[in-house]
Amino acid sequence: VALKVAEVGGAAAEATERAVTEATRPSPLVAVDAMGGDRAPSEVVAGALLSAEAGISVLLVGQEPIVAPLLDGIDPKDRLGSIEFLHAGEVVTMDDDPAKSVRRKKDSSLVRCAEAVRDGRADAMVSAGNTGATMASALLRMGRIRGIARPAVVTPIPGPLSTPTLLLDAGATVDCAPEWLVQFARMGAEYARFHHGIEQARIGLLSIGEEMGKGDEMRKRAYDLLSKLPGFIGNVEGSDLTLGRADVVVTDGFTGNVALKTIEGGMRTILRLTAEALNLPVGDARVGEVLEPVLGPAVAQYDPDAFGGAVLLGIDGVCVISHGASNARNIDTAIKVAAECAEAGIVHRMKEAISHHGV
Amino acid sequence: VALKVAEVGGAAAEATERAVTEATRPSPLVAVDAMGGDRAPSEVVAGALLSAEAGISVLLVGQEPIVAPLLDGIDPKDRLGSIEFLHAGEVVTMDDDPAKSVRRKKDSSLVRCAEAVRDGRADAMVSAGNTGATMASALLRMGRIRGIARPAVVTPIPGPLSTPTLLLDAGATVDCAPEWLVQFARMGAEYARFHHGIEQARIGLLSIGEEMGKGDEMRKRAYDLLSKLPGFIGNVEGSDLTLGRADVVVTDGFTGNVALKTIEGGMRTILRLTAEALNLPVGDARVGEVLEPVLGPAVAQYDPDAFGGAVLLGIDGVCVISHGASNARNIDTAIKVAAECAEAGIVHRMKEAISHHGV
Repeated sequence: VALKVAEVGGAAAEATERAVTEATRPSPLVAVDAMGGDRAPSEVVAGALLSAEAGISVLLVGQEPIVAPLLDGIDPKDRLGSIEFLHAGEVVTMDDDPAKSVRRKKDSSLVRCAEAVRDGRADAMVSAGNTGATMASALLRMGRIRGIARPAVVTPIPGPLSTPTLLLDAGATVDCAPEWLVQFARMGAEYARFHHGIEQARIGLLSIGEEMGKGDEMRKRAYDLLSKLPGFIGNVEGSDLTLGRADVVVTDGFTGNVALKTIEGGMRTILRLTAEALNLPVGDARVGEVLEPVLGPAVAQYDPDAFGGAVLLGIDGVCVISHGASNARNIDTAIKVAAECAEAGIVHRMKEAISHHGV
Repeated sequence: VALKVAEVGGAAAEATERAVTEATRPSPLVAVDAMGGDRAPSEVVAGALLSAEAGISVLLVGQEPIVAPLLDGIDPKDRLGSIEFLHAGEVVTMDDDPAKSVRRKKDSSLVRCAEAVRDGRADAMVSAGNTGATMASALLRMGRIRGIARPAVVTPIPGPLSTPTLLLDAGATVDCAPEWLVQFARMGAEYARFHHGIEQARIGLLSIGEEMGKGDEMRKRAYDLLSKLPGFIGNVEGSDLTLGRADVVVTDGFTGNVALKTIEGGMRTILRLTAEALNLPVGDARVGEVLEPVLGPAVAQYDPDAFGGAVLLGIDGVCVISHGASNARNIDTAIKVAAECAEAGIVHRMKEAISHHGV
């Protein structure tokens, strides 16, 4: 096989490697940071068990004295997927500095997850811990895909249509050059293709007016570059994020993160104001009973907990970032997203999306 | 008086001038761009009449053949405030380039409104027309307040508390230096003081994490500068905009405008999704009947139509920007905000807010 790879080289070689990997491993193995998140490790372990029941194999990574007891009495035969465990002595906390923690806490569950993917022991990783540190560990251990300037987090925003609007970057690269937004657009369109079945995504540039020339200097330059891209529909505004006007919306990580959290906060506020209009204290059980049937389906979609997991695109491996407050269901969803990305060959797809077009 | 002004100089001279102006003019005169807005001139004129009924004097500016007929048969005795009319031959359209239109359409209703304020004929101006051109005409005709680097639009965002969160800049200055955000904070705090009775506003910097050091390079530098300001509570996130954590939130005009429109769009989406959950087509009359009692008080607050008018701070005059879709009620509200700003001596207050602190 080695000779053959050397002969054909490039993408074909990769495809061969992939084929071999897929043949020897029936389902993806997802490394899960058991120590990451506000409700870790109990909810994380519970989520991993849900995924394993559904046939996904999970590598739980964490401190043995804390995580192992949670696995006591679990019968591997009860589930289709396997549960493996890997000890890691350290924990990256929510307050840790992202870059420093990766450098200093080399034996942390987070860094060990990223290394498991880098070393091919796992096919993907999931963490609900320190978001910055998760991105840093993935970036530093797996590396960027060659040709991609900066990574981007893609987050699905639900809307009135059946497919969500994919927002990227949602927080990985806060200071952006216009050229990078073009790469985000290509990666987002490819993600929409394989994850949501949209053959040619409508791509919008988040700005402050629909007309060309609206926005700051970075946006004006990005508009010109994006104009050459198939599917580019021009500028979209903040109001379009939840209205489904575009399949993919590109922006810098700062603006994307502000917009995403603005939506989350606005939805919480609506629930609170509506409860007050009905004279119910927000903690009242009737908030659920009375409001859920009316507002539930709408608001629930925008609950951060319902966002299954944001995917870090542009790195040479699969990394899914779950919300800090993730419960078992959210972890389960994130693991499934990670497994889907690994099965779909997301890294290979991103490489293709960039290399076929140049920048 | 001229000699006295020369002797005392500065702020005291201004106070004297103001006192004279106030003594000779019982209520503020607001110049209103009769041609500006999607529903101009009919709704604009109707709004002006509402304000006049409440005792505010209005100078309607527009094309005589179009506006005059709308004033036919109006009896000035029916209202406390006066209605004056000023002919302007040209109209700035929604598609016109902001800066160019001010330079080329010198006889437009918009430019004439700004000149009326500059020349002291009116105390304030209101337009629901081309937002960029409105800001440009105010800036180019009235000029900036000395010492203020860039203007900012302040927009109140309703929330669960009785006073709104003041967001600035909401779109005037899209490319921002960190120092300018400090001026926005000072202007916002002063606006909160006189307009909402908040003696010391809690000032937040819009960023992507609460901890110091979160955000892009501009935000990191702004954080350091803002730290010296009384009332600075640190970073706030997009989710805090509608949750009332701060009285004043400062950001660049690009991010502010994206956040504002994201809130508006999110609220419209909630209404639509809820209607669908109740199996009502969005146009169904029952959307109003069934949903309004529950969602009405909450969503209505975030309707762009309910935002009475955004105030352009930092210019040497009063300029209120009303939403393009403004109806008579919105125009009336905007005129009242303009009159309040003129009566409260907003320009003088902004000068004081900046000069007492230096930059």
